[in-house]
Amino acid sequence: MLENKILYGGDYNPEQWLNAPEILEKDIELFLKAKINTVTLGVFSWSVLEPQEGNYQLEWLRKIIDRLFENGIKTILGTPSAARPKWLSDKYPEVLRVRDNGVRNHFGGRHNHCYTSPVYREKVAMINTKLAEEFKDHPAVLMWHISNEFGGECHCELCQAAFRKWLSNQYESIDELNNKWWTMFWSHSYQSFDQIESPSSIGEQGVHGLNLDWRRFVTAQTADFINHEIHTLKKVGVKQPTTTNLMYSVTDVNYDKLAETIDIISWDTYPLWHKKEDILIAYDTGFWHDYMRSLKNQPFLLMESCPTSTNWQGVSKLKAPGLLEAASLQAVAHGSDSVLYFQMRQSRGSSEKFHGAVINNEGRDDARVFKEVVKTGVDLEKLGEVYNTATKAQVALIYDVENRWAISDSQGPRNDGMPYMDMVMKAYRALRRKGFDIDVISMEKEIKDYTLVVVPMLYMLRSGIEEKLEQYVSNGGTVIVTCWTGIVDECDRSFIGGTPHHLQEVVGLYSREIDGLYDWEQNSFVASEQSPFKAEYYCKNLCEVVEVTTAKVLMTFGSDFYRGYPAVTENQYKKGRAYYICADVEEKFYDDLLDIWTKEVKIKIPFSGKIPPDVEVNIRQGEEGKYIFVQNFSRENVDISCMKMEGEIIMGDDKMRLSPYATLVFKQNN
Amino acid sequence: MLENKILYGGDYNPEQWLNAPEILEKDIELFLKAKINTVTLGVFSWSVLEPQEGNYQLEWLRKIIDRLFENGIKTILGTPSAARPKWLSDKYPEVLRVRDNGVRNHFGGRHNHCYTSPVYREKVAMINTKLAEEFKDHPAVLMWHISNEFGGECHCELCQAAFRKWLSNQYESIDELNNKWWTMFWSHSYQSFDQIESPSSIGEQGVHGLNLDWRRFVTAQTADFINHEIHTLKKVGVKQPTTTNLMYSVTDVNYDKLAETIDIISWDTYPLWHKKEDILIAYDTGFWHDYMRSLKNQPFLLMESCPTSTNWQGVSKLKAPGLLEAASLQAVAHGSDSVLYFQMRQSRGSSEKFHGAVINNEGRDDARVFKEVVKTGVDLEKLGEVYNTATKAQVALIYDVENRWAISDSQGPRNDGMPYMDMVMKAYRALRRKGFDIDVISMEKEIKDYTLVVVPMLYMLRSGIEEKLEQYVSNGGTVIVTCWTGIVDECDRSFIGGTPHHLQEVVGLYSREIDGLYDWEQNSFVASEQSPFKAEYYCKNLCEVVEVTTAKVLMTFGSDFYRGYPAVTENQYKKGRAYYICADVEEKFYDDLLDIWTKEVKIKIPFSGKIPPDVEVNIRQGEEGKYIFVQNFSRENVDISCMKMEGEIIMGDDKMRLSPYATLVFKQNN
Amino acid sequence: MLENKILYGGDYNPEQWLNAPEILEKDIELFLKAKINTVTLGVFSWSVLEPQEGNYQLEWLRKIIDRLFENGIKTILGTPSAARPKWLSDKYPEVLRVRDNGVRNHFGGRHNHCYTSPVYREKVAMINTKLAEEFKDHPAVLMWHISNEFGGECHCELCQAAFRKWLSNQYESIDELNNKWWTMFWSHSYQSFDQIESPSSIGEQGVHGLNLDWRRFVTAQTADFINHEIHTLKKVGVKQPTTTNLMYSVTDVNYDKLAETIDIISWDTYPLWHKKEDILIAYDTGFWHDYMRSLKNQPFLLMESCPTSTNWQGVSKLKAPGLLEAASLQAVAHGSDSVLYFQMRQSRGSSEKFHGAVINNEGRDDARVFKEVVKTGVDLEKLGEVYNTATKAQVALIYDVENRWAISDSQGPRNDGMPYMDMVMKAYRALRRKGFDIDVISMEKEIKDYTLVVVPMLYMLRSGIEEKLEQYVSNGGTVIVTCWTGIVDECDRSFIGGTPHHLQEVVGLYSREIDGLYDWEQNSFVASEQSPFKAEYYCKNLCEVVEVTTAKVLMTFGSDFYRGYPAVTENQYKKGRAYYICADVEEKFYDDLLDIWTKEVKIKIPFSGKIPPDVEVNIRQGEEGKYIFVQNFSRENVDISCMKMEGEIIMGDDKMRLSPYATLVFKQNN
Repeated sequence: MLENKILYGGDYNPEQWLNAPEILEKDIELFLKAKINTVTLGVFSWSVLEPQEGNYQLEWLRKIIDRLFENGIKTILGTPSAARPKWLSDKYPEVLRVRDNGVRNHFGGRHNHCYTSPVYREKVAMINTKLAEEFKDHPAVLMWHISNEFGGECHCELCQAAFRKWLSNQYESIDELNNKWWTMFWSHSYQSFDQIESPSSIGEQGVHGLNLDWRRFVTAQTADFINHEIHTLKKVGVKQPTTTNLMYSVTDVNYDKLAETIDIISWDTYPLWHKKEDILIAYDTGFWHDYMRSLKNQPFLLMESCPTSTNWQGVSKLKAPGLLEAASLQAVAHGSDSVLYFQMRQSRGSSEKFHGAVINNEGRDDARVFKEVVKTGVDLEKLGEVYNTATKAQVALIYDVENRWAISDSQGPRNDGMPYMDMVMKAYRALRRKGFDIDVISMEKEIKDYTLVVVPMLYMLRSGIEEKLEQYVSNGGTVIVTCWTGIVDECDRSFIGGTPHHLQEVVGLYSREIDGLYDWEQNSFVASEQSPFKAEYYCKNLCEVVEVTTAKVLMTFGSDFYRGYPAVTENQYKKGRAYYICADVEEKFYDDLLDIWTKEVKIKIPFSGKIPPDVEVNIRQGEEGKYIFVQNFSRENVDISCMKMEGEIIMGDDKMRLSPYATLVFKQNN
Repeated sequence: MLENKILYGGDYNPEQWLNAPEILEKDIELFLKAKINTVTLGVFSWSVLEPQEGNYQLEWLRKIIDRLFENGIKTILGTPSAARPKWLSDKYPEVLRVRDNGVRNHFGGRHNHCYTSPVYREKVAMINTKLAEEFKDHPAVLMWHISNEFGGECHCELCQAAFRKWLSNQYESIDELNNKWWTMFWSHSYQSFDQIESPSSIGEQGVHGLNLDWRRFVTAQTADFINHEIHTLKKVGVKQPTTTNLMYSVTDVNYDKLAETIDIISWDTYPLWHKKEDILIAYDTGFWHDYMRSLKNQPFLLMESCPTSTNWQGVSKLKAPGLLEAASLQAVAHGSDSVLYFQMRQSRGSSEKFHGAVINNEGRDDARVFKEVVKTGVDLEKLGEVYNTATKAQVALIYDVENRWAISDSQGPRNDGMPYMDMVMKAYRALRRKGFDIDVISMEKEIKDYTLVVVPMLYMLRSGIEEKLEQYVSNGGTVIVTCWTGIVDECDRSFIGGTPHHLQEVVGLYSREIDGLYDWEQNSFVASEQSPFKAEYYCKNLCEVVEVTTAKVLMTFGSDFYRGYPAVTENQYKKGRAYYICADVEEKFYDDLLDIWTKEVKIKIPFSGKIPPDVEVNIRQGEEGKYIFVQNFSRENVDISCMKMEGEIIMGDDKMRLSPYATLVFKQNN
Repeated sequence: MLENKILYGGDYNPEQWLNAPEILEKDIELFLKAKINTVTLGVFSWSVLEPQEGNYQLEWLRKIIDRLFENGIKTILGTPSAARPKWLSDKYPEVLRVRDNGVRNHFGGRHNHCYTSPVYREKVAMINTKLAEEFKDHPAVLMWHISNEFGGECHCELCQAAFRKWLSNQYESIDELNNKWWTMFWSHSYQSFDQIESPSSIGEQGVHGLNLDWRRFVTAQTADFINHEIHTLKKVGVKQPTTTNLMYSVTDVNYDKLAETIDIISWDTYPLWHKKEDILIAYDTGFWHDYMRSLKNQPFLLMESCPTSTNWQGVSKLKAPGLLEAASLQAVAHGSDSVLYFQMRQSRGSSEKFHGAVINNEGRDDARVFKEVVKTGVDLEKLGEVYNTATKAQVALIYDVENRWAISDSQGPRNDGMPYMDMVMKAYRALRRKGFDIDVISMEKEIKDYTLVVVPMLYMLRSGIEEKLEQYVSNGGTVIVTCWTGIVDECDRSFIGGTPHHLQEVVGLYSREIDGLYDWEQNSFVASEQSPFKAEYYCKNLCEVVEVTTAKVLMTFGSDFYRGYPAVTENQYKKGRAYYICADVEEKFYDDLLDIWTKEVKIKIPFSGKIPPDVEVNIRQGEEGKYIFVQNFSRENVDISCMKMEGEIIMGDDKMRLSPYATLVFKQNN
């Protein structure tokens, strides 16, 4: 546990103002007004910390940390590896990344460095060691923030060699690799590991096993780099916990693996509020909050968020009054123990100078945004007891980034766009509307304790997920499985002998064909009179033609040559049940499916009524009781009397009605 | 003549399953069920045939050929040059292609090799020699399939030198080249052939003569490579005929030249069935069948087609029941002596693992697709007598790939899109709807024996086509010529002294200006009371303003400042006539023009009525009589009584009605 | 003064026809018919003037100049540096440009040379010297045309070194540069000038100060190259004036700086007539005419324009009858002393062979286009007395290319598109509709003598524009300022302490926030009853939220959370007034604002009525009187009686009515 209160503050770059000490003093004054208790320092400070090679200048940083600490503000301390000084790449060009076409980048941007380069690792170790020696025992330093937003890849010769070595550890022989990657196709067999090159836009791109293993290698190399950074800190005695800030919907690396390297998950969120209905943005953001929490199944930190408009997005949209507060509290509702911003003070120049900040270049404390920051600070003080409470979800939704890699890389059945994320999100939103807390997990996680497991388009099977699902249903669990599941193994090799592989008995059917629909086409799900479904639904993109064995057909397709074929089935398998959805069906279907299912299966929710539109509900489970967050993500008042909520209000003032963007927190004692 | 029956089968890659002999046995069992008599082997087998340099392994191939032959299945044998082993490019990087920006590709994909490289030619010669020695007398080997789908280009120094040499053979002097390419413009004159570089996206792109000659050189170098491959086979005594598989709408090379290198034309067809009305897809596919047949004016082979959905297309659309049969028989109707698939057995991995196959990974003989393959096999046995019969077209449509190069490279009159292929296809479809068999020919072909020659947008004149057209009309032929004809010579140099060059007297007019229309603009063709046309038509893209000399004006433009100017003219020239169409007019115009023309000119068709919508008709001419194919390309029943067909039905069962996707074949004896 | 008549003619490339002397004779015959008095020679002649290194061939050029001069036709003589011969780059590859990714171009295209290369400068000096020696005293040579359409950039090592040197002259120290560029952000500080690299798509792109200074360096290097060319001419005694042809909407370089190097401004205009309403094209073209005239505040030359369709545009649209004349006279109306075409005779081959020409490949003098050229020639003879008369604008519109660089490079507030040019053009068109002559000027120009200064989105402040504006309003001037003004300094560093920087008192308000709107969003301007505005207007893209101090609110926003906040304000500041427009509002607003303003402020226009739609009015001020051009830019007749024009008609025939595309010129004596 870091602190016994919710962390509030954000990224702060005072090295931009070392010649203007009055700025620092002004900032502290405003921080205190806004209840700020934490800042992140040093993330991009390398060229100030080591202006020439070997010339370390840490004094300014200590002074700032001390000065903030005197005012009750603690520091999350960054290692500076995300942006290296010019002298470093000038002297050691090998630290710059090489693109897949073999061209080495010039200096510039961020993250433009090779994770393999021994020189880079050595230089990072040296500056990290200096920082660790200086700050390992500093009472203000809460934790270490390793680098920044890891991602990207390098194709230099050092990385090629490391890739070959990594592969030779994964496969017993080159023959095994050839077989797993199915390189016999188009005569691409390798005779030795030495022949292997990384995927390239001017070379090999069509061997999916190579592509997948390259992504796994990049993940492993990134994790190894993080471990290297942490090791340099621990070697000199750092005891504070570590984190690195993750991001929205990243597919460069597999965060499951990065999560293992650090103590605490943190992430940066920049939703496009107001781009569509706010509740949809809230669901989308909530999905990633849930994903981040589920990585370690423990509270996480909101490491970056924007106080107002975000300058690098297509449109710098102002947040409407109240939204900043709602979005901040939503993070806490989903399991965050912090609300941190990028950035505390606006930069004067360069690429993020128009990024929203707690304090802008005008520097006034009557700015609208600053006043909203103050209000949120007051809220968080009220919610102190929520700190470090848990989330206990009864539903798991399997979202797996390696599956996503494989689906988007695979040729067919819809190169014009596979609806994987759409299908994941349709199910997620329907579950949310029922008020369920949801764990968003990869195939590697345990599933046995959930009441419901939703499995959208699990094209690739790995980590024994097929056995886990079979066992889970055998023991009484419910699964909802969709089309295009169980097609390939972890190297993207088709299973022989029918699909969904290993699950045909569980779902009580087997698949015959899958039809890709053009963007303008649709089919429908229609119900017989006996069906529990009463409506008709449209479906798009993909329609699977299946043959049932033991499953009961609940709906059938309404058109095309497979009219009358099963579209939705239900199968009793041992003590459990499995639903199978044969197409990318519209979202309302999932609402109705959950209605049907919840009539038959008991699942606990902490209120007896229905959730009105535009409202999101989350629960954090403390030792004494539940904290139930009820939030209005619209610009209108919402009547919530229909929810029939019980419990003590610890934030908010009206049990029956939520004003625009308002949050109500109930406590129900155990 | 290869066999006295229609070849049925396709590409087979058993080298993927050498460790699973039960797969081969299972495959043969299913092949026999489906009436398969031919497979194509070895196309991508180099890394199995020569796993290390000089280590040749042909035994496995002989065993498979023998085993298939024991079961009555013959082999089309591929040379493996389309995909080289990794060791080859690792040791000899010169075999990999260089892009127009000077960057050499990495290993990967297919066809990634230089046609000029002496090393590559030598290595290909060696493996081909081994194959030829082994199989030249094998009774199962029907023919040799040289490499695969030739195309693409290389800009390496070896190719640059070959290009310069090729140019110095084409032109008497560098002055002649300068004049033909008009290099005085922008000071681009060359002082010697040594200075010439290939067109490059980071260098010269605006000298159209250079661009055209580069494409001609690439064609010549590709043809030379094919000749090299065939020579290595013949040198050791190969007597079987040769082919190479061509493709849809290719513009990399001029197939007229490649056709000269081989004995039999074959091609690969992957229509986007169901993407729009099937009859339109059928016309489009039919056009390319006709083009392929016309290359040598003899029956061709359908070398590849897909039994169901094609995974590398934007959407993997299933073929509706019956369509596989219809599409297969359409090839035969247009002159194919084979129906061959890619692929016989589905691959387990890599980029085409979801490509449709006769036998899929499930391996069941009750799969819908397999059952349709069986049905088509039964059909083809019925149609055995059609084998090697001819097509005798009375109409020629000039489609010339060099003209297409020049139109798409030329700056103006519509860089936003020149409607060359649209205009070709509008005429083609109208001719089809009249039931005419059509030869699709280049400018190099003889035209004297046709009743009608259609000449859409013949921008470039070469091979004396202007004299041939003049002679043809003089002798009584009819031509339909459109705007933007006769503009440039074979080096894309404008003709001096008016256009359409050499044809002004034939068409009885000369051109003054051409107007480019924006995408949203249109004009119209309007008729006076005397006109044989009774309707009004819209036109788009291009409107030519002409002045008539001897021509009769049939229609005029309806708007813009050239309202009232000629839009359609007819000219009597000596014994023949010439129609001139001044714009890219809507398709219905061509139907009405042909109606008007056929009232005056006799042209024979083998039925007395009209062809209903969605129906395609083709005729193959045997020694005893005509085989008339009547096919329904829709999902509805079609009444064909209006066609008033005569003759004996040799396939199908109802003279009056075609069920969805059904084919009827009549025989009319001579 | 060049001649006492309007120059008429254009670019002529007879070096393409040296083997066809009859072409030259035919051309002269047609030139005389068309009243041609001037041609431009030699622009792309280097490979004919110096076919091998050091082998100079100027005789052919002298002969052509002489032969034309005998026929009364004078020559504008080009230096040939825009397209170098093949031998030059073959021998000295350093002359070819290097791209921002470090790749050197191959030979090809035009302008593909490094302005820094000493070799290139030497070779240009040598050919220029030869030309100067030959033609410096030739009575036919009117002026020197330096190279062609300068633009583009080179990133070679020579340019990198020159850039570093240029920067070290701009900044006192590397610390100053770091501070101005704000490189502390993301650790991008430099320790020495030697470390600096040009912006690169594979390196640094986010340091706006670097990007801006790179553009300034490219401008300086281009100007230096022009100075070098002119110096080589003057060194051997050239006395004739110099020009270089500028272009439409160029942002590669800052034309203000290039203008200083030459004696006379000239430019090339290729409007997309008929792509939308012609009056809109006329306004757009007029804007650039005014910009070019304002560069030196003296008459300019129309150096290139197209007699008919322009082949390198998306669609080669024919100019409707009369438009050529209207467009040509419009240039004169805006201050041009010439009408020159590209090209006099059509090229036979290469990339511009279908570009419109006075004489096309058919070569007939009854061609429609040729006849329109003749008619325009006759007009220009009539307008001889307009030659060298001035334009006296009372309104200045600030359009500044460096401001445009900064807006388009800056991240936020709308990366999906900043409406800078839209806002400039909305104001311009409204001013035109009032009949005002307009100077289009950069921030560097003096503004004190104007009656009105319009300041759309002056994001960047430099050259003391803020002090000039303050002084101007103090002294009684009127400014119209819009949102997003006064944000950053000349290095794109935000001003501290509120915006619009230095102008808060002048406009009587300060800015709080700016909202980016999605493409589909809009807000509105609404008026209270007291407002002089009576309508409601929609606005898009950007809405600024301001707080007024002394300003009067004329309109407010109609929706979103800033509904009721000021949208339009008016402030009395000392003797003058300032309007502030808080959003990108629809164009009609500007018409109404000018109506309100002109009721209160006197501004002189030379007619008492209103200008009808589709009509443009321009005035040239001679010593004896005003020449008022009234032009109809539509295909319909327009009644102009409402304008109540006075004066003598010196061109045209009907004071009350303008036929399609007709021009009327009045003279009003002083």
